[in-house]
Amino acid sequence: MKLNQGYRHLQNSYFFSSIVKKTEDYRAQDPKADIIRLGVGDVSIPLCPAVVHAMQQAVQEMGRKGTFHGYGPEQGYDFLRSAIRGYYRRYGVRLEMDEIFVSDGANSDLGNILDLFDRDNTVLIPNPVYPVYEDTNIMAGRKILYMHASEQNGFLPLPDKSIQADIIYLCSPGNPTGAVYSRAQLEKWVDYANDMGAIIIFDAAYESFIATPDLPHSIFEIRGAKTCAIEICSLSKTAGFTGTRCGYTVVPRRLVREGLELRRMWLRRQTTKFNGVSYIVQRGAEAVFSPEGIEQTRSAIAYYRENGRIIKNALEELGIWHVGGEHSPYVWLKCPSGMGSWAYFEYLLHTCHIVSTPGAGFGSSGEGYLRLSSFAGRDDTVRAMERFIQKGIPGQSAGQ
Amino acid sequence: MKLNQGYRHLQNSYFFSSIVKKTEDYRAQDPKADIIRLGVGDVSIPLCPAVVHAMQQAVQEMGRKGTFHGYGPEQGYDFLRSAIRGYYRRYGVRLEMDEIFVSDGANSDLGNILDLFDRDNTVLIPNPVYPVYEDTNIMAGRKILYMHASEQNGFLPLPDKSIQADIIYLCSPGNPTGAVYSRAQLEKWVDYANDMGAIIIFDAAYESFIATPDLPHSIFEIRGAKTCAIEICSLSKTAGFTGTRCGYTVVPRRLVREGLELRRMWLRRQTTKFNGVSYIVQRGAEAVFSPEGIEQTRSAIAYYRENGRIIKNALEELGIWHVGGEHSPYVWLKCPSGMGSWAYFEYLLHTCHIVSTPGAGFGSSGEGYLRLSSFAGRDDTVRAMERFIQKGIPGQSAGQ
Repeated sequence: MKLNQGYRHLQNSYFFSSIVKKTEDYRAQDPKADIIRLGVGDVSIPLCPAVVHAMQQAVQEMGRKGTFHGYGPEQGYDFLRSAIRGYYRRYGVRLEMDEIFVSDGANSDLGNILDLFDRDNTVLIPNPVYPVYEDTNIMAGRKILYMHASEQNGFLPLPDKSIQADIIYLCSPGNPTGAVYSRAQLEKWVDYANDMGAIIIFDAAYESFIATPDLPHSIFEIRGAKTCAIEICSLSKTAGFTGTRCGYTVVPRRLVREGLELRRMWLRRQTTKFNGVSYIVQRGAEAVFSPEGIEQTRSAIAYYRENGRIIKNALEELGIWHVGGEHSPYVWLKCPSGMGSWAYFEYLLHTCHIVSTPGAGFGSSGEGYLRLSSFAGRDDTVRAMERFIQKGIPGQSAGQ
Repeated sequence: MKLNQGYRHLQNSYFFSSIVKKTEDYRAQDPKADIIRLGVGDVSIPLCPAVVHAMQQAVQEMGRKGTFHGYGPEQGYDFLRSAIRGYYRRYGVRLEMDEIFVSDGANSDLGNILDLFDRDNTVLIPNPVYPVYEDTNIMAGRKILYMHASEQNGFLPLPDKSIQADIIYLCSPGNPTGAVYSRAQLEKWVDYANDMGAIIIFDAAYESFIATPDLPHSIFEIRGAKTCAIEICSLSKTAGFTGTRCGYTVVPRRLVREGLELRRMWLRRQTTKFNGVSYIVQRGAEAVFSPEGIEQTRSAIAYYRENGRIIKNALEELGIWHVGGEHSPYVWLKCPSGMGSWAYFEYLLHTCHIVSTPGAGFGSSGEGYLRLSSFAGRDDTVRAMERFIQKGIPGQSAGQ
């Protein structure tokens, strides 16, 4: 019996737990410290009333004979896929119902979509990046190449035609950087993928934070994307579903390789290794796309975006280079005084009582950078930035 | 870019959809026929009041700031793992909290657990069997051997020491047969697996139907199992969660191969490719294990078991060989007059207006057999069996 040796090549998942541990250690040292968490990627605003109402209704239905729901369609109920399809129409994207697959969140589908690909493929991943893209491929034993993101390219790497890649990960708006690709930039990626026969896995988890109409929400707004891309979306940040668990994946009919329709393969995978998302949760997700749901969830997003503006203002005041925060709940900043990520993390924790996320945890190109999130409460965010303006740069106080 | 060629080797998943199609075709022919479905593996009794109440409460919490839950522990909340651990104590099985992993149902974990194993392993699967064990391994490109189950061995195959297997699937009580392994029989399997260094994937989805205290509910009631088995459980049939989606997988600490703890590997897999089960659903699952939940769900199981008794009585009256129905919602019967599965399926559909599940869909050793389920309503089951007694054997009417 042979185990999957890929697991031996994973780094210990120490990164996020290190942050927790260092925070706990500091708290033990200074129990009276008013520690403000700007590191987490979890929402703070509860589910909106439209969603709560829909799920109350659904729970009730599940307790009664005439309205009880057993096994549902593995691809997701029509009522939800129809709502998702309607949502895509806002951005001019036309989808068929059978191209839409309801998921229990982006993480599951980001991992499981790799079932469709042979081990012998080269994967192209941004650096810095959400660690999941890398770890899932290390588990699968695939060769990984990195696209170097930096201040120079605004943390938005573009295709390098000298690199042959089979599976390309793009996340826009990005995690950890919050940087957003323009339409023209995504066109370059779509052309590259179509030329290479490669497939783009487009992570659109943060699309709902986009604030201006010029920026694309979906890869499928780009002509040619339906022959080279899979889009993975989530209601986690859009509607606060981090603990409720729902998302959707789009696999276009025209995504064909070696004579096989990836959509049919995905359907086969899901009808075999999955049994659908809870009926109750799907009714909650449907409510997200109702007029009330859209209004209420956008209101929460506006709240977070205002936190982002407060954070950006503080960084601008201190002259700290940064990206993100406008179309994303994340702000990505350059550590002052040439400090390393972890050193600046410790500095902010001890001096400002702010918990952040060191950029080095997202890859080598994240070293020297730091991520702050806009998910905390307004008062906490304001208070944290007041401290930050005072003491955020080592050796300088405000007014010097 | 290379696709996973394993998908080319899958049969079209025509089996269950063929049954649906043939039923629809018959209905179109004879729209007034009172068709009774005894083929489905879906429950008919709604969620019990204890579960509904717990989920109503949880939905409410999710809408309020102080009680909102975001990301939960990927392994599942303590409150639920604690309840599951308490449940195992009933059967004398002691588990640590960190050996228990909450899932969104057995199907997901049955498929995803295979991530831990190299492609180069031989899989041993019963025949007939729930098609998922086979399909998930065809997708992974593994070599599959079959254990032949038959009337002679009561559809409970035992180890053959001349066969070298790495991953062994056992389902007890079984699907499709409803046959249950005794303690002594499972001891043989555990000894075999430990001798070979193989791993047993034990599917306990139907354990709650076991009616007598002598029969084991969990593989871990067998000494030695903690060094060779993973157990995959589901609340689908236990508590009617087919549309609510929750289960649990047990990976013992002592399950070690090549110096790697499979438990740690599974935790790593789930913290990377999964993001936990909905908080609302976990509160519902917790309620299943409360005193009220146990009483209410057992009441539903007793209802189904009585349907099973009615089905068995009819078969006994007609002298048709069968197994199952007592410790399982499935009854597995030998088609009379040497008929093939599909032929008898058609006969029952046209003559008795009963939908069943032809045994051939579960593997070559299922040919000549048929599965009936006890999940229909009482009146439907009684009515179906009255017809069956009259006309269930071609060429014979009751009284002849």
